[in-house]
Amino acid sequence: MTAVEALDYGSVFVFALTGALVASRAQLDLVGFVFVACLTAVGGGTVRDVILDRAVFWVAEPIFVAVASVAAIFVFLTAHLLESRLRAIFWLDALALAVAVPAGVAAALGMGALWPVVVIMGIATGCFGGLMRDVVCNEVPLVLKQGELYVTCALLGAVTALALIWIGQPLAVALVGCAIVTFALRGGSLAFGWRLPVYKSRPPRR
Amino acid sequence: MTAVEALDYGSVFVFALTGALVASRAQLDLVGFVFVACLTAVGGGTVRDVILDRAVFWVAEPIFVAVASVAAIFVFLTAHLLESRLRAIFWLDALALAVAVPAGVAAALGMGALWPVVVIMGIATGCFGGLMRDVVCNEVPLVLKQGELYVTCALLGAVTALALIWIGQPLAVALVGCAIVTFALRGGSLAFGWRLPVYKSRPPRR
Amino acid sequence: MTAVEALDYGSVFVFALTGALVASRAQLDLVGFVFVACLTAVGGGTVRDVILDRAVFWVAEPIFVAVASVAAIFVFLTAHLLESRLRAIFWLDALALAVAVPAGVAAALGMGALWPVVVIMGIATGCFGGLMRDVVCNEVPLVLKQGELYVTCALLGAVTALALIWIGQPLAVALVGCAIVTFALRGGSLAFGWRLPVYKSRPPRR
Repeated sequence: MTAVEALDYGSVFVFALTGALVASRAQLDLVGFVFVACLTAVGGGTVRDVILDRAVFWVAEPIFVAVASVAAIFVFLTAHLLESRLRAIFWLDALALAVAVPAGVAAALGMGALWPVVVIMGIATGCFGGLMRDVVCNEVPLVLKQGELYVTCALLGAVTALALIWIGQPLAVALVGCAIVTFALRGGSLAFGWRLPVYKSRPPRR
Repeated sequence: MTAVEALDYGSVFVFALTGALVASRAQLDLVGFVFVACLTAVGGGTVRDVILDRAVFWVAEPIFVAVASVAAIFVFLTAHLLESRLRAIFWLDALALAVAVPAGVAAALGMGALWPVVVIMGIATGCFGGLMRDVVCNEVPLVLKQGELYVTCALLGAVTALALIWIGQPLAVALVGCAIVTFALRGGSLAFGWRLPVYKSRPPRR
Repeated sequence: MTAVEALDYGSVFVFALTGALVASRAQLDLVGFVFVACLTAVGGGTVRDVILDRAVFWVAEPIFVAVASVAAIFVFLTAHLLESRLRAIFWLDALALAVAVPAGVAAALGMGALWPVVVIMGIATGCFGGLMRDVVCNEVPLVLKQGELYVTCALLGAVTALALIWIGQPLAVALVGCAIVTFALRGGSLAFGWRLPVYKSRPPRR
C-alpha cells in the first residue's frame, strides 16, 4: 500500500464519520447517512484527482466506498451514545483534515506537480469534502467559520511537508510532520481559541 | 443511438422541465429558466463523465443542450397552466431519476467499471443534477428530504440492473428493470409515504 | 502570452477582488480572504478546463494563484476605504464577467469545440466562479438575482464573439467585442435596471 492510499483510507474513514454525524443532525435515514458520509469522505480526493487528471482514487478501488459506508452504519447505530454530536464532529473533522492534507500533498508530489500546486492540493483534499457536506446539509461551512483556524491549518501543514522535504527528510517524515502540524493547529484553535485577526474594520454585510 | 444516449436524451428533457419549474418558483427570466434547466439536465451526467474520464456527453453532441433549452422555453410559456408546480416538480423529478439512473449504470458498464462503481454512477447521474438545482436555487435538496425515499430508489434501481445482468438478462432488460424499480419506489414514496426509519433517537441539531 | 492566458490573468485578478470583498462581508481572516478569492478566481476556468478535458490552467502555471492571493491581500488591507462594498462587488464582478466570458470562448475555440459548446464555455467560465463564491459564502447568487441581466450578458457576449468570427473578423476583435457587449449589458442592467421580463404569472414558491 502506498502512502497516498494509506492516508486516503484514514481520511475516508474519519471524514465518513463526520458526514454521518451531520446526517444524524439532519435526521436522515440509513441510506441518507451513507450518501452524506460517502460525499464527505471521497469529495476532497475526487476534486484533487479530477484537477490533477489522475484516475479518481475510488473508481479503481471501490473498497474506499465500502469503508465510508461501514463508518456511516456504525454512526447510525451508535450516535445516540454521544454526549455532544457537534463536539464529536469538530474533533473528528480535525483528525480527518490532518490525514487528508498529507494525502493531497503526497498525491500531488507523486504527479510531479509544482510546489504551489502541492500546497493547493493539500488544502483542497482536506477542505472540499467537508465543504460539500456542509453546503449540501445546509450547515455553516467549517471552512468559513469566523474566528477559527481551518484553511490556515491545512496551508501550514502542507508548507511543513514541503519544508521537511526541502531540508532532505524522507517523504514519510514529511507527511507525518504535515499531519502533526495540521492537527495541532486545528486542535489548538478548537481547544484554546487560537485564531488570526479577522477583518472587521466595519460592520458586516453592509 | 446507443442505450446511454437514448436514456441521456430522456433524462435531459425531463430534468430540464424540473429545473425550469424551480426557476419559475424563483421568478427568474427566460435566460434564467434555460440556465437552471441546463444545469439540472446535464449536471448529473457531467459529474459521471468527469469521474469516469469519459468525454462529457454534451460536449460531443450539444443537441442535448438544445433539448434542455426547448424544455425550459416550453415551461416558461406553460407553467401557469399547472395547478401545483411543486407536485409537478416532484413527479417529473421522479421520472427523470428513473431514466437517469439506468443512463449512469449503462455508461459505467460501457467503461468496464467495477460493480460498486456502476452502482455509484447510477446514483450520481440520478441525484447530482437535482442536487445542483436545489443548492443553487436555495430549495431544500430533494435528496435530503426527511422521511422520503430518494437515494434509496436510485440505489435499489442500480442494484436491480446488476442483478438482472448477473442472472443472464440482456442489457436492455436490465436497464428497463432499473427504471421501473427506481420509479416505483420513488413514486410509492411520493404517493403512499413509503419510507425508511429515520434517525431520531434525540432532538435534531443539538 | 496567448489570448486565453491574458484574459485568464485579467479575470483571475478581478474575480479575486470580488471574492475577497465577499470574504470581508463575512468577516473572515486573511487566509479566509485568500481561500474565497482563489475559489472565485479559478472556479469558472477550472470547470471549463475539466469539462473540455484541457489541463487545468493554474496547475501548469500556478502564478495565477499568486495573482489571486495578492488581490486578496490588497483587499484585506484596503476594503475599509470603500464607501460601499456591495456596490464595488457588483461592478468588479461585471468587469470580471466581461473578461472571463471571452477567456472561456477563446479556450473552447482553441480546442476546436462546436459552436454551442463555445457559447456554454463562455457562460460557464464567466458564471461558475461567482456562483461558487456566493453558494459557499451564503450570499444570494448574482446569477439568479431577480430582475437583473447576468447569464444573458454572458450569452450575448459569447454569441457576439461567434458572430464576429463568422463575418471574418480576427480572433482578437471577436474577443474584444465579446467583452464590450458583456460589460455593456451587465453595466446597463446595474446602472439603468435593464432587464428581461421575469416569470410571474403567479405568486412565487407555491
